[in-house]
Amino acid sequence: MIETDFELLKGIANQLRIHSINATTAAGSGHPTSCCSAADVVAALFFSQMRYDAKNPHHYNNDRFILSKGHAAPLLYAAWAEAGLFSAEELLKLRRIDSDLEGHPTPRLSFADVATGSLGQGLGVGVGMALAARLDKLDYNTYVLLGDGEIAEGAVWEAASLAGIYKLNNLIAIVDANRLGQSQATAFGHDVGVYRKRFEAFGWRVETLDDGHDVEEIVEVLGGVGLDDKPLAIIAKTYKGAGVSFLQDQDNWHGKPLNKEEAARAVAELQPSAKSAAGAPISAPSAIPAPANTVPTSYPAISYKLGDLIATREAYGAALVRIGEADQRIVAMDGDTKNSTYAEKFFKKFPERFTECYIAEQNLVAVAIGFGTRGKVPFASTFATFFTRAFDHIRVAGISMANLKLVGSHVGVSIGEDGPSQMALEDLAMMRAVSGSVVFYPSDAVSTEKLLEVMAKNRGIFFLRTSRPKTPVIYGNDEQFPIGGAKVVRQNAGDKITVVGAGVTLHEAVKAADALKAEGIGITVIDAYCIKPLGKDVIRAAAQKTGNVVITVEEHYAEGGLGDAVAGELSAEGIKVHKLAVRELPRSGKAEELLAKFGIDAAAIVKQVKALA
Amino acid sequence: MIETDFELLKGIANQLRIHSINATTAAGSGHPTSCCSAADVVAALFFSQMRYDAKNPHHYNNDRFILSKGHAAPLLYAAWAEAGLFSAEELLKLRRIDSDLEGHPTPRLSFADVATGSLGQGLGVGVGMALAARLDKLDYNTYVLLGDGEIAEGAVWEAASLAGIYKLNNLIAIVDANRLGQSQATAFGHDVGVYRKRFEAFGWRVETLDDGHDVEEIVEVLGGVGLDDKPLAIIAKTYKGAGVSFLQDQDNWHGKPLNKEEAARAVAELQPSAKSAAGAPISAPSAIPAPANTVPTSYPAISYKLGDLIATREAYGAALVRIGEADQRIVAMDGDTKNSTYAEKFFKKFPERFTECYIAEQNLVAVAIGFGTRGKVPFASTFATFFTRAFDHIRVAGISMANLKLVGSHVGVSIGEDGPSQMALEDLAMMRAVSGSVVFYPSDAVSTEKLLEVMAKNRGIFFLRTSRPKTPVIYGNDEQFPIGGAKVVRQNAGDKITVVGAGVTLHEAVKAADALKAEGIGITVIDAYCIKPLGKDVIRAAAQKTGNVVITVEEHYAEGGLGDAVAGELSAEGIKVHKLAVRELPRSGKAEELLAKFGIDAAAIVKQVKALA
Repeated sequence: MIETDFELLKGIANQLRIHSINATTAAGSGHPTSCCSAADVVAALFFSQMRYDAKNPHHYNNDRFILSKGHAAPLLYAAWAEAGLFSAEELLKLRRIDSDLEGHPTPRLSFADVATGSLGQGLGVGVGMALAARLDKLDYNTYVLLGDGEIAEGAVWEAASLAGIYKLNNLIAIVDANRLGQSQATAFGHDVGVYRKRFEAFGWRVETLDDGHDVEEIVEVLGGVGLDDKPLAIIAKTYKGAGVSFLQDQDNWHGKPLNKEEAARAVAELQPSAKSAAGAPISAPSAIPAPANTVPTSYPAISYKLGDLIATREAYGAALVRIGEADQRIVAMDGDTKNSTYAEKFFKKFPERFTECYIAEQNLVAVAIGFGTRGKVPFASTFATFFTRAFDHIRVAGISMANLKLVGSHVGVSIGEDGPSQMALEDLAMMRAVSGSVVFYPSDAVSTEKLLEVMAKNRGIFFLRTSRPKTPVIYGNDEQFPIGGAKVVRQNAGDKITVVGAGVTLHEAVKAADALKAEGIGITVIDAYCIKPLGKDVIRAAAQKTGNVVITVEEHYAEGGLGDAVAGELSAEGIKVHKLAVRELPRSGKAEELLAKFGIDAAAIVKQVKALA
Repeated sequence: MIETDFELLKGIANQLRIHSINATTAAGSGHPTSCCSAADVVAALFFSQMRYDAKNPHHYNNDRFILSKGHAAPLLYAAWAEAGLFSAEELLKLRRIDSDLEGHPTPRLSFADVATGSLGQGLGVGVGMALAARLDKLDYNTYVLLGDGEIAEGAVWEAASLAGIYKLNNLIAIVDANRLGQSQATAFGHDVGVYRKRFEAFGWRVETLDDGHDVEEIVEVLGGVGLDDKPLAIIAKTYKGAGVSFLQDQDNWHGKPLNKEEAARAVAELQPSAKSAAGAPISAPSAIPAPANTVPTSYPAISYKLGDLIATREAYGAALVRIGEADQRIVAMDGDTKNSTYAEKFFKKFPERFTECYIAEQNLVAVAIGFGTRGKVPFASTFATFFTRAFDHIRVAGISMANLKLVGSHVGVSIGEDGPSQMALEDLAMMRAVSGSVVFYPSDAVSTEKLLEVMAKNRGIFFLRTSRPKTPVIYGNDEQFPIGGAKVVRQNAGDKITVVGAGVTLHEAVKAADALKAEGIGITVIDAYCIKPLGKDVIRAAAQKTGNVVITVEEHYAEGGLGDAVAGELSAEGIKVHKLAVRELPRSGKAEELLAKFGIDAAAIVKQVKALA
């Protein structure tokens, strides 16, 4: 055990302050005072408490550190520079287009597992990391630094609750209670007792620091990590701008850099007691074997029969078990809908790789993201429409370039009697708008199974949209479904119009084709199983054979879904897209009644084809 | 004071159970056991505690009741039928397409202020209603009935926290702790002490009921409403399926109707002690004058000068104060960004009509919705991208046909150095996909001011997207901006191409027009200030004069925004849309650098025009 050099830690904290001030002044923007309040905590974590390989931030058993209060990015950057990962001169490139030291951290930086900056998201990701450590029998701890303002976010309490339920004593939340928000003081100011009560009520052990700038106090409470069976919350009473006389605890300094003269004055105050971390001892991670996380070369075969009636949501459950057998990286989680999404099949087979997240969809997604950062392939499921609850998390997962698989069931009006609150009619718009996302929408069991393989094999954010009604198997067991593809399901010479559907509406289109054929009108039918990137080559080729006329039909509102995707991709090439979509607020009723009422059933397609043919 | 007839209340509770069971059996779906657990609480509320005019659910001073656990809809419907609002025979039409008694409540019903069914949203709406009562000096109370499963949702704790902060002693949360979720038991089962600790930590007075089916206990704790200065949480230990021997506390009965034989058996058990509510006394609301909530006939004029440089976000703040002077219905709220969104101007002028919601965007929106149900015109603001945190609330607001005005600032890459976590690049996709929404995107101060008038005057969900950079005033003070319009900003005979922009990109398009003019190439420039409903007549007319070729340019990802909107609306008419949009993950940098790097500045427009002209 190395004796802690508290004077060195104090000096490093001031060095981090100096870096944060100089960097933001050089950038002309940023949040120096939010860095100063947390500098002592960060110094104690990075240069006394945490066990990590500073040259290899991705080491599988490094302690994890999530800066949930992402606007204190310069402090994080300064800590890694002082730890020796890169030159401190780089810090002065903060926020420049030619630097990865962005205004808020992103995984362009090796030491940022996830992007932060949209507040309240770090703790849920930390829960996922802590669960992954437990699954992999690794002894790294996960430290999450939060601001006091951000813990007004409900997502924090979703995460806190689950951490308490699962007794994650390898998870540590540190609240930098600096009293001041962006536009005014926080609701509770320096009443750290409020935060104590809340975390305790959510199943945490809590330590409060009367002086969050006292590195001896900080180191002492950090010594208690892992000592009992609860997650640990440390509430540190701090001052915004701490360490600089004219900044400390002052209003109107949020998100403002110092001008050069002010910066010079601040640095002059800090410099005498600042110390380089060059000589600080950093403990190495313990030598536990790395988890395998092997990528399988193949998955077991499937054996469906054409015409079998199976809901795609049910095929999802079967597929997850099948590929989960072969792929130990796969973990799953759900928000108390597992008997409806069919994630339950995986839960029953592999309970140790399943996390019940209860009814808390933001945290469901955050936990999945956390697992994804640890080499796992996380499949999170709930009703598709409830992923809207987690849109901000999913959006930020895009910035994190996360490995995240979302599976949403119960799409569209075909869910029937439960009514509009349970119907996903905007999820395609949402998921298409996520940076780097891939959006799948299968129509039968075979395509669902095969798309799940694609999701497991390929890194990135994938969304699979499943339906409630049973639909017939239309593909052979060897059919392949590449990213960016589409399938021609019906096509004959002389077809008048190309109809593009997916899910339930694909089957309506097939029915329409049969009905129209009887009347001597041929239509091409395309399965747009990949909504993003759209299988536009297939659609274009078909459309060009039908006079450039396309009808899209979708269980989705008219905005941002399949129709907009096809029009947005192909209108520039002169392809004319007529959209059939849900154009008014739906209601309860039988599935077939609703498909008819909202104009997306076979009869509606027939009518539209006849109007155009 | 009327002596409470507890035997009558018990009998009514069983009558409500019978109705719930019969209705769901007739429907063939639904959640009878979730109704049974809460039947006694609802009987006590509706037929002893609440003061309301049962013939006029909209009465301004009726106590409010929000069924946050919306899947217990049949219980709510039964209560109103027993209260005499409509015939009990109607209950058997539950979930039919020809009935407004949907699977989950919606405001198609006079007694449902908001749609529920997406769990965890009711309490935040209740906070808004309770704040509205205080503002209007009305003495109605707001009762919110929650399930125990749903309080895993972070949104509940955002609401609980704000209610505690503002000491809303006219707000009552009742938790129906029936132990069983959809797919398994809740995390805390019947440990009501956990819920007690949590609500207490969030500033509430808490009562626990060891027997949530004992109407005497229920009535007693309800007698404590308003007795101190805290909101009141009542945690009722109940049993799912209570009152029916073969349902009570049994697994696998979530969301399942009884078959006819089972229903007959259940009713046979309940019938002997069931009583009609026909003779129950219902207390009338007290006679306080109604709030005025007068719609003004006009708003004060504006006086901008052409060319003045004003950010649209700043114009928003000015506009809100201006129309707020004339329109007492207007209230505002923000999530600790008011100094950036400029809602601060309104806060400073009308502090009593402003609610600081702190960093909790779900609740920010919920509070606004609550105000909207009470005749107010709520303007909720934050960074546009943080509204993604509240997408599920906004989606459900669509089902609620809410009166809700959202104003999101800091859109697109032009915010610069703060980086992608703060940039709204998917908000148009999100807001377009909301049922019944109107989406505005002004480019100058005048249009911002005028659009805000439109938002105040017209009922419904409106989203106004504002930008961070200063932009010149381009419209005269008398210009009008109707819903569904667009403005031709530049147009000359012989124009080659129509360019459609909005916000910052409109000004880039104007710059491009100037540059191209110097080279002898004319382009038409259109301001798409209304993204939904799109000003398609204006765009079509312009496009038809430029060979049907349109370029859209937007500070948004390529999916679901302006380009998709134009293509989706007009491709069927043969108009060819070329989209300039952000097509990769952005990063920190200077605004102009980023507009250039991501291909949406004047130079990019010039290049695209030349490629097509």
